[in-house]
Amino acid sequence: MTDYSQLEKRLNYTFKDKQLIIEALTHKSYKKPYNNERLEFLGDAVLDLIVGEYLFNKFPNSNEGVLSKIRASLVNESGFTLLAKTIDLGEYIFLSSAEENNNGRHKPSLLSNAFEAVIGAVYLEAGLEKAKEISISLLEASHPKIDLDSLSKDYKTALQELTQASHGVTPQYELLGSSGPDHKKEFEIAVTLNNEIIAKAKGKSKKEAQQKAAQIALEALKA
Amino acid sequence: MTDYSQLEKRLNYTFKDKQLIIEALTHKSYKKPYNNERLEFLGDAVLDLIVGEYLFNKFPNSNEGVLSKIRASLVNESGFTLLAKTIDLGEYIFLSSAEENNNGRHKPSLLSNAFEAVIGAVYLEAGLEKAKEISISLLEASHPKIDLDSLSKDYKTALQELTQASHGVTPQYELLGSSGPDHKKEFEIAVTLNNEIIAKAKGKSKKEAQQKAAQIALEALKA
Repeated sequence: MTDYSQLEKRLNYTFKDKQLIIEALTHKSYKKPYNNERLEFLGDAVLDLIVGEYLFNKFPNSNEGVLSKIRASLVNESGFTLLAKTIDLGEYIFLSSAEENNNGRHKPSLLSNAFEAVIGAVYLEAGLEKAKEISISLLEASHPKIDLDSLSKDYKTALQELTQASHGVTPQYELLGSSGPDHKKEFEIAVTLNNEIIAKAKGKSKKEAQQKAAQIALEALKA
Repeated sequence: MTDYSQLEKRLNYTFKDKQLIIEALTHKSYKKPYNNERLEFLGDAVLDLIVGEYLFNKFPNSNEGVLSKIRASLVNESGFTLLAKTIDLGEYIFLSSAEENNNGRHKPSLLSNAFEAVIGAVYLEAGLEKAKEISISLLEASHPKIDLDSLSKDYKTALQELTQASHGVTPQYELLGSSGPDHKKEFEIAVTLNNEIIAKAKGKSKKEAQQKAAQIALEALKA
């Protein structure tokens, strides 16, 4: 598709230099003298700053540990894939037919990288303020409630999305046991994938232990 | 010291809001209701973008792997400590007397964090362009030659600086052996600290193996 008007409409930005948006949409499999990896490198840093500053202002009383944690839950492959999907970015990516047949247009890594590249391209052409406006508007539309509680709830969802995409299965949570006196009970939960334990965690409630286990599993699967 | 005029002169920037620069210079040990950690969080992302964009423009033909590698060699604790020292930032940091007696004013982590916080403060008050101007001018003054070759040479220097600061000793390099035919020889080098091997690496020359070993040791010591 070489008509970017729909994409530009969704971004609320019209590129002056069409070669720039073409580069941002070109996956390396497409075998052109250019691809979107350099713009992705730039866009990655642009998004880190934009989301960091947004949280810095939104949570004036949170320390940097909390800010880093919230940012990490937004600025990652599944977070950017979500944003890419809201603008149907996959439709516009140039990729090899092999990659196309391999479901490339729907791959989280490909979508997330192209999203970063597009934001890098906006930054280059129109500056930080414009890139900020676009990114924050997409972010807020996809995350109606940005706070520590609701973001940490996303670990289980994120894990499920990841394992369904990569393994075609849903993770299961198993209570391994509980310990301690009633007023200070601790629960241990295991996450399993195809009946195999992939992570364990303890928490003050089953819910907390599940979240922690999901987070550990997510990190392990991504590494 | 509460006269910032010398520091502002070295930065080539005068803060309008003096509370902002005070916050950027306040280490958490100083036990105030504020400290520089939130500004450090912001400044870290600002510097990542500034240096990333600088390299993106300076090396139009390098791929993102190369750009990431060069950035990693500039954007790290020893890199920022170097910049902090060129503006005598240590003199201006507010810290507890315990931290002061513990040589805190010269600690790389403390200097590097304060440097990030100062850049974060400039960004907040004066925007990205001003932060860029200041950072790039300090960076270029400290690294007269920014290219892949001379930056990768810095691993041995960086390791030496780190081990001298943290252990009071200089790392030693030992040839463990070489293998392969003459036209394709490989050398294996160990870095030792107090006669204990802290990293090993192979390379096509002794120099290359030393650099790689120093890089691995650096990463291990920082982790």
